[in-house]
Amino acid sequence: MNRLEPTDPAALPPIKVALLGCGVVGSQVARLITQQSEDLTNRVGQRIELVGIAVRSLERDFGGLDPELFTTDADALVSRGDLDVVVEVVGGIEPVRSLVLKAIEHGASVVTANKALLAQDGETLFSAAERAGVDLYYEAAVAGAIPIVRPLRESLVGDEITTVMGIVNGTTNYILDQMTTTGADFADALAQAQELGYAEADPTADIEGFDAAAKAAIMATLAFHTRVRGADVYREGITQVSAADIAAARKAGCVVKLLAVLRLDDAGRVSVRVHPALVPDSHPLAGIHGAYNAIFVESREAGRLMFMGPGAGGSPTASAVMGDLVTVARNRVRGVAGPGESVYAEREIMPMGEVETRYLVRVEVTDEPGVLAACATVFSNHNVSVQTVDQTTAENTDEQVAVLALMTHLARESDLQAVVAELGTRPFTRGPVAVIRVEGK
Amino acid sequence: MNRLEPTDPAALPPIKVALLGCGVVGSQVARLITQQSEDLTNRVGQRIELVGIAVRSLERDFGGLDPELFTTDADALVSRGDLDVVVEVVGGIEPVRSLVLKAIEHGASVVTANKALLAQDGETLFSAAERAGVDLYYEAAVAGAIPIVRPLRESLVGDEITTVMGIVNGTTNYILDQMTTTGADFADALAQAQELGYAEADPTADIEGFDAAAKAAIMATLAFHTRVRGADVYREGITQVSAADIAAARKAGCVVKLLAVLRLDDAGRVSVRVHPALVPDSHPLAGIHGAYNAIFVESREAGRLMFMGPGAGGSPTASAVMGDLVTVARNRVRGVAGPGESVYAEREIMPMGEVETRYLVRVEVTDEPGVLAACATVFSNHNVSVQTVDQTTAENTDEQVAVLALMTHLARESDLQAVVAELGTRPFTRGPVAVIRVEGK
Repeated sequence: MNRLEPTDPAALPPIKVALLGCGVVGSQVARLITQQSEDLTNRVGQRIELVGIAVRSLERDFGGLDPELFTTDADALVSRGDLDVVVEVVGGIEPVRSLVLKAIEHGASVVTANKALLAQDGETLFSAAERAGVDLYYEAAVAGAIPIVRPLRESLVGDEITTVMGIVNGTTNYILDQMTTTGADFADALAQAQELGYAEADPTADIEGFDAAAKAAIMATLAFHTRVRGADVYREGITQVSAADIAAARKAGCVVKLLAVLRLDDAGRVSVRVHPALVPDSHPLAGIHGAYNAIFVESREAGRLMFMGPGAGGSPTASAVMGDLVTVARNRVRGVAGPGESVYAEREIMPMGEVETRYLVRVEVTDEPGVLAACATVFSNHNVSVQTVDQTTAENTDEQVAVLALMTHLARESDLQAVVAELGTRPFTRGPVAVIRVEGK
Repeated sequence: MNRLEPTDPAALPPIKVALLGCGVVGSQVARLITQQSEDLTNRVGQRIELVGIAVRSLERDFGGLDPELFTTDADALVSRGDLDVVVEVVGGIEPVRSLVLKAIEHGASVVTANKALLAQDGETLFSAAERAGVDLYYEAAVAGAIPIVRPLRESLVGDEITTVMGIVNGTTNYILDQMTTTGADFADALAQAQELGYAEADPTADIEGFDAAAKAAIMATLAFHTRVRGADVYREGITQVSAADIAAARKAGCVVKLLAVLRLDDAGRVSVRVHPALVPDSHPLAGIHGAYNAIFVESREAGRLMFMGPGAGGSPTASAVMGDLVTVARNRVRGVAGPGESVYAEREIMPMGEVETRYLVRVEVTDEPGVLAACATVFSNHNVSVQTVDQTTAENTDEQVAVLALMTHLARESDLQAVVAELGTRPFTRGPVAVIRVEGK
C-alpha cells in the first residue's frame, strides 16, 4: 500500500477500458486486465475495469471472459462517452482509423499496436489526441515487447540519435536464419515458417518489408523529430535473397538480415530504408536468431546501445500494451496527459540514390587474363572503391568462368547502380550481377 | 515547430536548472544544455536555462562555461526558490541528501545519478518529492546510458517481472574480461584498469560490489514493487576471483562475470544478490566485453529481453541525465509531475541460505580408489545433486592428487555450504574447496 495515499484505490471509481479486437493479442490483454486486477489497481491507483470488447462476430469462444462484454458494434462502444482508455489491437487502416479518432473525440486515451496506421497517418491521430488532451501510446507497434518507443521518445530525448539499425520483423528473421543454418532456399524456408505459424498464409506484409518499413517510419519520426511516413521508406523485401547470397555472406564472414536502417547525416538529412543486408558475424545484430528482434541505436553522447527480445506473439505484444495501459491510466488518475509528439524539425529525406553504404557485388566473368583489371576499372569509372576481391572458379559450367566477389568501401547507391549497369554491358560478364548491401562494418 | 502551438517557445519564461557537481558527468551536462539549446527548446516547449553550478572550489577550469554560473554555496543555490530542476551529479550521501531534500522542499524537481543515495534512502527522497508534487528521476543511476529505469518503471509495469540479471559495473567487467583474455591474475588486471582510467585509485566500491549492489537494490524496488535497500543485497566482490577460477570456467564452457541477480519466486519472495558467477558462453551476457553493461530481464508475458550499452563514462551518463531533464522539464511546462514510486508490495527478502542456484565446486583430493564415491556421498548427504564431474590430475604436486570439478543441479545455498564444510573435514581433501555460482543455464 502506498504510504502517502491512505485512500483505498479499489474504492475509487474505476478507469474504464474498452478493447477493440480480441484475437491473438487482444485475448491476452483481456486476460491480463482480469487476472492481474489487484496488482494493476495498486500500480495505477484506481481499479482498471474492462467495460467492452468489440469483435467482428459473436459466434466465438469467449475464452473465459464474460460474454456480456462482447459487442460487434465498435462504433457504439467507442462513442459511449465514459471511456478512459481504448485499446486497439485490430490492425489495418479502416475502420480502425475512424474508430480511434472517434474514441479520441469522445475523450478517451488510446493505446494501439497498429504500426501500419501510425506510419500512414500518425499526424492526424497525434493532432487529434493533442487537441483533445488525451494520450496516444504505441509501444507495442514497434518490435513487440522490446521497449523501444520510450527509450527513443524519453530516455534519449536529450541526446542526438545518429543511427538506428534493427531487425524488426520476426518472420523474415526466422526465414533468413533457417536459410543460413539449413541451406534451404527462400521458398522452402517460407513454407516451413508458415507451417510453424511464424509466417501468415499471405506473408506479403512481412516478406516484402512493408511491416518493417512501417516500424522504420515510426522509429525515424521519434529518433529524428521529423515526420517520416511508411511511404518515405526505401523498401526491399527478402523474396530475392537466394541460397547463393547466403553462401556468399558466409564466405565473407557475414550473415544476411532484413534490416531497418535509419541515419541522420552531418548535414541534418535523414535516410530511412529497409532491405536485406550483410552483417558481420562480430556485430551484435548477427547473433539475433529465430523470431527475435533487436534494435541497435547509436547517439552522439550515449554511444552504442542495443535492445533485444521477442518481436511478436500474443503475450509479448500484450505486455507492451499493458505497460502503455498502466502509464495512460496513471495519467488519467492524475488528470494529466503525457507529453505529445516531438516533431519540430523538417528534415530532408534523402533519395535512395544519395545514400552511402558498402556493397558486396558478385559477378560471373570469363576466366581470361585482364578481366579482373577490366572489372576493377568499371568500379573506378564510377568512383566506387573496392576493398577486397575474392575470385573463385564457377562450378557446373562448360566455359572457363570465374566468380568475382567484390566488397566495396563506402559508396553512393547511384554510383553503385551505375557500376552494375556498366558491368551488364561488358562482354566479359556472364549472367546477372548480384548486389547486396553491407551494414554494421 | 509544433503545428498546434503557435507560441514561440523561446519567448516563454525559461525552465531554470541548477547543477550540483561539475566533474566528469556534470561538465558534459552543462555542455549539452548550452550546445543543444535550440533542440532542447523545441523538445521541451520552453527554453532550458542553466542558472547555477555548485562546485567544491572556484579554482578550476570553467571549460568554456560562464564563470559567473559557478558557486561554492550549494545550499544557497538549491534554496533560491525559483528553480525548476536541480540536477545532482556529485554522488555520495551527505551533504547531497540534505541538498536534494532542500531543493525538493523549495519546489524543484530533481534529476540524479546517485545510486548510493537512492539505494540507502530512496524512501525519504521519493516521499518528499511526492509531498511536494515534484519529480525525482534517476535513469543515470543504473547502467549509465542504458535505458533500464523507464523500461522497468513503465514499459513492463503491466507485466510481472520474474528475473533481472545484469552486468551493471563496467570496472569489474573490464577486469574479469582482461583476466579471461590475457590469463592475468586479479591484481595485475586491476592495476591495468587503474592505469587506463577504468578503475579509480580507491576501487573498493567497484571491486567489492557495493556499486553493483546499490544498482541491484534500485532495480529490485522497481521490478518487484517492494522496498529493497542496498543493505538488503547479498554481496560478494571479485577480489577473490583467481586465474584458476577463470581457467575452470573456460573448461566448463563459461566465463566469469560479476552479476546482479534479482528473482521473484513463485511464493512472491524476492532474492537480490551480487556476486561473481559462471555464465555459459551461449548466454547473451557472456558476450558483454570490456566496460560495457548489459541487463537481461525476464517477465511472465514479455519473455526474455536484453539491454546493452556503455555503463559509465561522462558522455553516456550525461545522455541519461539529459533524457530525464527533458522529461522533467516537459512535465514542468505542462504543470504536472510524472508518476511517483510504485512500492505497494511488502515482499519478503529471502535470506541467502534459502536461495537456489547451481554451483561449480572444485576440490583437490587424494588420487585413490573410492575417493570420488566418498566425495559424491558428501553432496548427496546434503541433498545436493551433482550434474557433471570432471576429474584431472593436479599439476606440480609430489603427492598423487586429483582435482574434481563438480557441477551441481539447482541447490540451496545453505545445503551447498554444508557440503563445503563437510568436504573440509574429510581426510581425502587436500586444500581449500573452491565454489563459484553458475547462472543463466
